[in-house]
Amino acid sequence: MAELSAESGIPVATIKYYLREGLLPAGERTSPNQARYGEEHVRRLKLIRALVEIGGLSVATVREVVAAVDSDRAAYNVLGVMQRALSGAAVDVAGDDREWALELLGPLAREHGWKFRDDDPVVESLVGTVCTIRALGHQVLLDQLGRYADLADRIAEVDLDTVAAVGSMDRIVEAAVVGTVLGDRLFEGLRRLAQAAETARRYPEG
Amino acid sequence: MAELSAESGIPVATIKYYLREGLLPAGERTSPNQARYGEEHVRRLKLIRALVEIGGLSVATVREVVAAVDSDRAAYNVLGVMQRALSGAAVDVAGDDREWALELLGPLAREHGWKFRDDDPVVESLVGTVCTIRALGHQVLLDQLGRYADLADRIAEVDLDTVAAVGSMDRIVEAAVVGTVLGDRLFEGLRRLAQAAETARRYPEG
Repeated sequence: MAELSAESGIPVATIKYYLREGLLPAGERTSPNQARYGEEHVRRLKLIRALVEIGGLSVATVREVVAAVDSDRAAYNVLGVMQRALSGAAVDVAGDDREWALELLGPLAREHGWKFRDDDPVVESLVGTVCTIRALGHQVLLDQLGRYADLADRIAEVDLDTVAAVGSMDRIVEAAVVGTVLGDRLFEGLRRLAQAAETARRYPEG
Repeated sequence: MAELSAESGIPVATIKYYLREGLLPAGERTSPNQARYGEEHVRRLKLIRALVEIGGLSVATVREVVAAVDSDRAAYNVLGVMQRALSGAAVDVAGDDREWALELLGPLAREHGWKFRDDDPVVESLVGTVCTIRALGHQVLLDQLGRYADLADRIAEVDLDTVAAVGSMDRIVEAAVVGTVLGDRLFEGLRRLAQAAETARRYPEG
């Protein structure tokens, strides 16, 4: 375990915690006090750390995601599990607000050929977000929903090109996890730089 | 305060917590046990809740963001403070890895006309993200950096159109906060739906 820690750069106490929490499979026991860990353990540790530190995911969410990566399900289904695990806590919205949000998002989804089920956690999360935006009086943001949706389609193409560029099937699922969690952060960063540049262009007084 | 709670839908205990933490300005005292709260308090409460619940920001970050919103600085500077507050905890990267990341990101930023300072927290955060992606062996994601950057420019245009559609100056700053924090979540949700549709198109076996 000391070697695993040295190789991955993750403290022994943290590795023990990940083992206890079921994020990392146990090593092959070689004596009562020793276990052998392989390349796969180093790889998995790096993935866990990325999901926690860059992705900001909770240990419970990471557990769900790695269980999906390890399952024998078809890639399509694993991606579904992962997307649901990553969609985050939704704000609870009911009644008229919920109806309004579904009527705003449903036609948009159909127009873009997106599956749209109102019990999908991704949809739940979007419903919470658009209702909050409206409650804050920032409808102007929602007026741009169509333009954002067009660009989301363009980004998804790049995302899937990335996934497809990975060879083997079990790497594809991991690539999708990395692409989703780290891809969000990566794009957020680029968007910040682009926003700053666009702000400077439009409001040069700064 | 009971009325403020009823109006905003936020429990009295939470409002007291926000007051103690300096997120919400005190009401106008009308007697030793009573204070008057106005429309602005309701509005600010909704903003705080959105930043915490949808944006997932810590109380400390929300404090920084609302202080920037309340400051008299020019819009350009407020947006800068906010962007820095929102750029999140970076993974510490030093030495060769850091050099490599800066050489990857610097030319990209120049090409897109983005300001690029290596002590900018947005840049720090990007450096951490690209180094982690490389450490995980997912360079294919970085091969697409140029396409992501092009789309980031397109998104930033829509983002700033939204901000510009808001009339008054103090609403512009709030709009930028909402647009950044809730805009990230909104776009993440749309990207998930678009990814799922693109996945189904490319891997129809599911």
